[in-house]
Amino acid sequence: MNITISKNELNSSLQAVMHAVSSTSPQPYLRGIRITADGEGLVLTGSNADISIQMNMQRNDSNDLNIIEEGSILIDGKVLTEIVRKLDSETISIEVIDGALTKFSGHSALFRINGMNPSDYPDIDFSKPPVSFTLKAADMISIIDQTVFAAAPKDTRPVLTGVNFKLEGGVLTVTSTDSFRLSKKTVSVDSAETFNITIPSRSLNELKSTVLTDPEAMIEISLNSRKAEFISAGIIFQTKLLDGSYPETDRLIPKEFNREMMIDRMDLIRAIDRNTFIRTENQAINRLQCSENEIVLTNRSQEIGDSQEVLSADFTGEELDISFSAQYVIEACRAIGSENIKIRFTGEMKPFIITDPADDSLIELVLPVRTYN
Amino acid sequence: MNITISKNELNSSLQAVMHAVSSTSPQPYLRGIRITADGEGLVLTGSNADISIQMNMQRNDSNDLNIIEEGSILIDGKVLTEIVRKLDSETISIEVIDGALTKFSGHSALFRINGMNPSDYPDIDFSKPPVSFTLKAADMISIIDQTVFAAAPKDTRPVLTGVNFKLEGGVLTVTSTDSFRLSKKTVSVDSAETFNITIPSRSLNELKSTVLTDPEAMIEISLNSRKAEFISAGIIFQTKLLDGSYPETDRLIPKEFNREMMIDRMDLIRAIDRNTFIRTENQAINRLQCSENEIVLTNRSQEIGDSQEVLSADFTGEELDISFSAQYVIEACRAIGSENIKIRFTGEMKPFIITDPADDSLIELVLPVRTYN
Repeated sequence: MNITISKNELNSSLQAVMHAVSSTSPQPYLRGIRITADGEGLVLTGSNADISIQMNMQRNDSNDLNIIEEGSILIDGKVLTEIVRKLDSETISIEVIDGALTKFSGHSALFRINGMNPSDYPDIDFSKPPVSFTLKAADMISIIDQTVFAAAPKDTRPVLTGVNFKLEGGVLTVTSTDSFRLSKKTVSVDSAETFNITIPSRSLNELKSTVLTDPEAMIEISLNSRKAEFISAGIIFQTKLLDGSYPETDRLIPKEFNREMMIDRMDLIRAIDRNTFIRTENQAINRLQCSENEIVLTNRSQEIGDSQEVLSADFTGEELDISFSAQYVIEACRAIGSENIKIRFTGEMKPFIITDPADDSLIELVLPVRTYN
Repeated sequence: MNITISKNELNSSLQAVMHAVSSTSPQPYLRGIRITADGEGLVLTGSNADISIQMNMQRNDSNDLNIIEEGSILIDGKVLTEIVRKLDSETISIEVIDGALTKFSGHSALFRINGMNPSDYPDIDFSKPPVSFTLKAADMISIIDQTVFAAAPKDTRPVLTGVNFKLEGGVLTVTSTDSFRLSKKTVSVDSAETFNITIPSRSLNELKSTVLTDPEAMIEISLNSRKAEFISAGIIFQTKLLDGSYPETDRLIPKEFNREMMIDRMDLIRAIDRNTFIRTENQAINRLQCSENEIVLTNRSQEIGDSQEVLSADFTGEELDISFSAQYVIEACRAIGSENIKIRFTGEMKPFIITDPADDSLIELVLPVRTYN
C-alpha cells in the first residue's frame, strides 16, 4: 500500500473511526484501525465488541487522495491518530515498506511504525439490513438527548441500559427507563415498516459525535434483529442491539390527573439545583408542598441542615405534599427545553409527568419517593 | 453574628480562601472557613497544614458590607461556597440563629446550615515576619512559571519538592531541581536583606490563583525561617517553608562550552512533541545528532517503531550525539518563551543549558541520558 492524502481530511476521518476503537482492548488488533486502499478509494475501519465504524473516502479536491499502490495495513489507533494529528504538512504519505512496517512522512518528519497484519482483523459485515427509514440528523440528536439520560447506567435487566425504538403505523416511539423514571418521545416517520429494537445507550452517544455531526444531513437507518446501521455520506456506523424484550411501559403512564402545576422551567431547575448540596446518603431528595396559595420547595439532611424556597408558579387542584429525586426532575426539565413546563400529578405516591405545555410528543415521567420528614 | 453583603464580592473572596481549605481533611474544622465580623469588618480564614489564607473585607461601595451584629462562625467550606455561588440575589444575609445554626438568605431562598464552633478553629498567627521586600505580581508569576515545573514531584530529600529563593546583595536567585534538570532565575530586587528559604511547589501554584490574580499589583513578601507571607490588598497568603538546606547548585552549571545550537523555539518544541508517542518504559528519549551540515532528531522504541526529523537550525562546534528526556527539553523551552533559543553543550554525557540568546537571567539545565541505540 502506498498513498498520499490531505492531512486534515484524514485526521477528521480517523477521529470519527476512533469512536469505535477500544484503546485498552486486550486484543491488539481491536486497538487498531485498518486502512485499505483499492480501486474504489480508501476505507478506514474500527471496531470494538459493540460498535463498528467504516469510513469510505473517494478521491476529491479536498482530500487530494492519491493511491499509488493498492493494499492494506492495520495500525494501532492511538499511534495512527497521534502521527496524523501532529505531522506538520498539508499532504502526508503512507507507505507499507516491509511486511507490516509502515512509513509515514510529511514535511521534514518521518516515522517508521510497526503495523499489524491486516488479515488478523475481524471480518465485519457492513452489508445493509433490509428494514430501512430516514431521519434528519437534527431529529436523531434530539431523540438521543431527550431519552438516553433516563436509561439505566447498569441493570440486572441489560435491556434497560439501552433505548427502545419502536416503529408502528408511521409513528416512531422512543422509550428509556431505569425503573424510577421514564422518558418517551414520539416522532412521525414516513415509513410503513414495523420493528421493536433496543440500542445500547453508549452506541447512541458515540453516534452523536460521528454520523450526526452535520445536523442538516439525512441519515439512513437500516436494521435487522441483531444490528442497526446509521449511514451518512461516506460513513457507516453499526451497533449491535440489546437482547431481551423491552418492558411494556404505556400502562405506567397515567392518563388522568387531578392536580397541575405550570412553572418557568429554568426557575424550577435553578431552585432545585441551589439545594442539591444538601444530601442524605449521597441523594438529594426535594419535597414540594403545593396549595393554590403557595408552593414551597424544601430539602433537609440531619447532618448539613435544610433549605426552603417559595416558588413562583401556578398550581390547581387539591393540596399536595410530594417528594422526588432532585437529579431526576432536573434532567427531565433539561430534556424538555420549552420556556414553561407543565407538571401533572395524580397523587402523593403516584408517578407524575412533566411536559412542554404545548406539546405532548415528549413525556417525562418521575416516580416520587417516600420520605419521613 | 448577623451581616449582609454583596453576593459577588463574598463569592470571589471565598473562592480565594478555598485554595487553603482541604475538603477531605479528617478534621472537620479544617474543612471549614471561619467568618468573623467585628468593628474592623469581615475576616474570612481558611487553612490546611501548609497554607493559610486570611481575607479582610472592609465595608465599601462594591461589597456593600453591613454588620448588624458582631460575632463569628465556622462553616464547611464546600457548603458555604455552594450556597453563596448559587443564591440568586445581589445581597445575601448571614445570621447565626441558634448556637452554630446559621441562616443564609437571598431572594426567595433560605438555608439553615449546621455550622461549627468557631473557637474550635486553630489559632493561626498571621503577624508579619520581619524580613520584607516587594515584587510586582507579574514578576512573581514569571518566577513561578519558570521554575516550579523543574522541582521534584516527590523526593527522598523533601527540600527538592520546593523552589529555593535566595536573596543576597540585591539579587534574588530562584532555583528548582529534581536532580535531572535544573531551572535558575535571577532577578534584581531593591532590598539589602539576606535570606535562603525553600517554598513548597504546591504553595507557589496556589499563590498564583489567589494573591497574584492582578499582574499589576505590588506584592509584599515577608518571611522568617519557618514561614513566608505574601500580602496584597486585603489578602494574606501564608505558607510554611521546607526544612533542610537546599543543595549548592552553582557548581553544577557549566561555564564554558564547546558547541552551540541556535533554533526557533517552537520548531524544536513541535519536532520533539511530534515523536513523544514513541515511548520505552513510558519515557520518550530523543537523540540529537549534530554536525555543522545537518541536525537530526530521532526517537525509537522496539515495540512501536522510530521517528526521524531533520531540524532547521545552526550548529557550531565538533560533531555531537546526545540523548535527553523529551519532556525535560520541552518544559525548559516553554519556560524560556523567546522566539529563538540557544543550547550550549560541553560533551555527550555532560549537562547542557538552554537560554534566551539575548538574556542569561533564566538558565535551564538538562542532564543527558545514556542510550544504547
